[in-house]
Amino acid sequence: MKIDGVPYQSIWRGADGSVRVIDQSRLPFEFATVELARVEDAARAISSMMVRGAPLIGATAAYGLALGVREDPSDTAIESAAAMLAGTRPTAHNLAWALSRMRGTLVGVPLSARAEAAFSEAAAICAEDVEQCRAIGVHGASILRRLALAAPGRPLNILTHCNAGWLACVDWGTALAPVYRAHDDGIPVHVWVDETRPRNQGASLTAFELAAHGVAHTVIADNLGGHLMQRGRVDVAIVGSDRTTASGDVCNKIGTYLKALAAYDNGVPFYAALPLSTIDWSITRGEQIPIEQRPESELTHVTGQIETGGLATVRVVPIASRALNLAFDVTPARLVTGLITERGICEASVQGLRQLYPGLGSAG
Amino acid sequence: MKIDGVPYQSIWRGADGSVRVIDQSRLPFEFATVELARVEDAARAISSMMVRGAPLIGATAAYGLALGVREDPSDTAIESAAAMLAGTRPTAHNLAWALSRMRGTLVGVPLSARAEAAFSEAAAICAEDVEQCRAIGVHGASILRRLALAAPGRPLNILTHCNAGWLACVDWGTALAPVYRAHDDGIPVHVWVDETRPRNQGASLTAFELAAHGVAHTVIADNLGGHLMQRGRVDVAIVGSDRTTASGDVCNKIGTYLKALAAYDNGVPFYAALPLSTIDWSITRGEQIPIEQRPESELTHVTGQIETGGLATVRVVPIASRALNLAFDVTPARLVTGLITERGICEASVQGLRQLYPGLGSAG
Repeated sequence: MKIDGVPYQSIWRGADGSVRVIDQSRLPFEFATVELARVEDAARAISSMMVRGAPLIGATAAYGLALGVREDPSDTAIESAAAMLAGTRPTAHNLAWALSRMRGTLVGVPLSARAEAAFSEAAAICAEDVEQCRAIGVHGASILRRLALAAPGRPLNILTHCNAGWLACVDWGTALAPVYRAHDDGIPVHVWVDETRPRNQGASLTAFELAAHGVAHTVIADNLGGHLMQRGRVDVAIVGSDRTTASGDVCNKIGTYLKALAAYDNGVPFYAALPLSTIDWSITRGEQIPIEQRPESELTHVTGQIETGGLATVRVVPIASRALNLAFDVTPARLVTGLITERGICEASVQGLRQLYPGLGSAG
Repeated sequence: MKIDGVPYQSIWRGADGSVRVIDQSRLPFEFATVELARVEDAARAISSMMVRGAPLIGATAAYGLALGVREDPSDTAIESAAAMLAGTRPTAHNLAWALSRMRGTLVGVPLSARAEAAFSEAAAICAEDVEQCRAIGVHGASILRRLALAAPGRPLNILTHCNAGWLACVDWGTALAPVYRAHDDGIPVHVWVDETRPRNQGASLTAFELAAHGVAHTVIADNLGGHLMQRGRVDVAIVGSDRTTASGDVCNKIGTYLKALAAYDNGVPFYAALPLSTIDWSITRGEQIPIEQRPESELTHVTGQIETGGLATVRVVPIASRALNLAFDVTPARLVTGLITERGICEASVQGLRQLYPGLGSAG
């Protein structure tokens, strides 16, 4: 998608072969790109959340492994690079998925050819992600088009939580892909952007990318969505997913469950948009998904822009108080109207997913 | 309640007759008391949220009117002082209630005696509030005592939203009164404190007063409560109310409805604690309650403490993005396990409230 008219992806290889990403921890106030030179840089970029979002984590891990292989293509080195990358974020299923795919590709490849094979596979993972997100956009936009027909003369109000836009993927996004597609197709849309505490990915990243692409939006406190649904001001909610069980339970950014409850209570359709790589066929109950606990400081401190333009960090919780920062929750399939995938839209259930992914669904 | 061992109330008259409040907009990092010298000071203290919380707003408006009367006891001046105070916050029912009671008291009182009568009535409103909150604490603690028996060997986990503690009232609090009473009675309690965006009253005020009184607590993002309930980590939720309909719908800080949905979905008891003055007998449907829209800046900017100790304000939303800041939502009575009032605990319904307030309930 575009920033100030310039097309960008969230991770790319420069003409000199370097791997570059956008430092998302400095958005929306500073736009900077950073080179990942070694596998350690990629691991740090993921764990520090310079890059985040399930698909982009997978893509960064893939390029990270390629960077490691370029340095040392031995099996031992690959093993240790993969372990380092796998340990960065426990919840995102794409991380394990991308690493396993990368390692599978390198099996039996002579040492001298491994670096090229690894970079080529990482590029393929990125290209597939772009294509999957594009397809999610097409399928999801069909829902928005239908809902817009029922709301003539005003923009369609879409609520989203966290950032599942192109910054979370390589391009297009998952939850936002249908929004971009609908917007580009001339359907008037307006997005309610959940701030998404504690890391404010909605206020900082979703708002940034929607503004950069020219999509109408309003930032709201995470507390507001339920009230807006009660008052008929939300036509549809679309979120991403960091891991989806074979039964359609959706693990996503903390607070997603609360919005799903409100949508259900008010008859507002609630969709999760996700690519195949997000589905964990080995798990059928959301409670089995490990929930990442992140540092208290993400909640106790807030970083933003001071009036003179620089960034500052302020403490918002008394020093005498502790904080608990769990990053994800699980929305049970019963609250999910449907899953929007690159293959189409399905019910959030074992049956629904099996219909879209016959081979994989039954393998679980 | 106590701060560093010193007993405080949230509003009081000094020995010299001055009216003083705690500047809550500077908590938790700066503790300062401020004199309200004129009715304009009281109005500004309410609208700027130097004082907040439904009962304290009522108490401050009462003293504000007394300050106005001291300056000019004429009917015209009282009319205009009351109008100024009534316009400060549209949702809190206590505001209108306190002003109407104050004006009723002054009817027929000779001009020369009005100031004394007004101060005396304001003091009576405060004293009654303290007694009501104390009684709410006693009734609510009986619920906590019963729940604690079912959870032996560990602290009882209570979730609260926003600040309905003693800082929101004159003393004790509404939602927190049962917590303080239980704590003082030796029942081990632990409070999950919702941060409460956008103004962070949970992180700044609830955490502050619980810490000052020595009650175990953990600050959490507003997004976390649903997940904690799913995992059995919340035994009961207690919130305050800014206005309660005659049918038991609870209007409270934005986001309360989402927690009530999660509590209902997980079988967690959900109570609202409130004094008589919060009940609006003229309204039977929550949708009829006007919802205050506050400045965007409360969401787009965050104030906190910088490392060197001073306060700073940082922008957390891109300049290109708009924000919407509605301060309250309505939790339908069907999601409320019960109302804890100064007269006891009742069902959130017309029948429940009528049983506790026979004369008033039938007047609606």
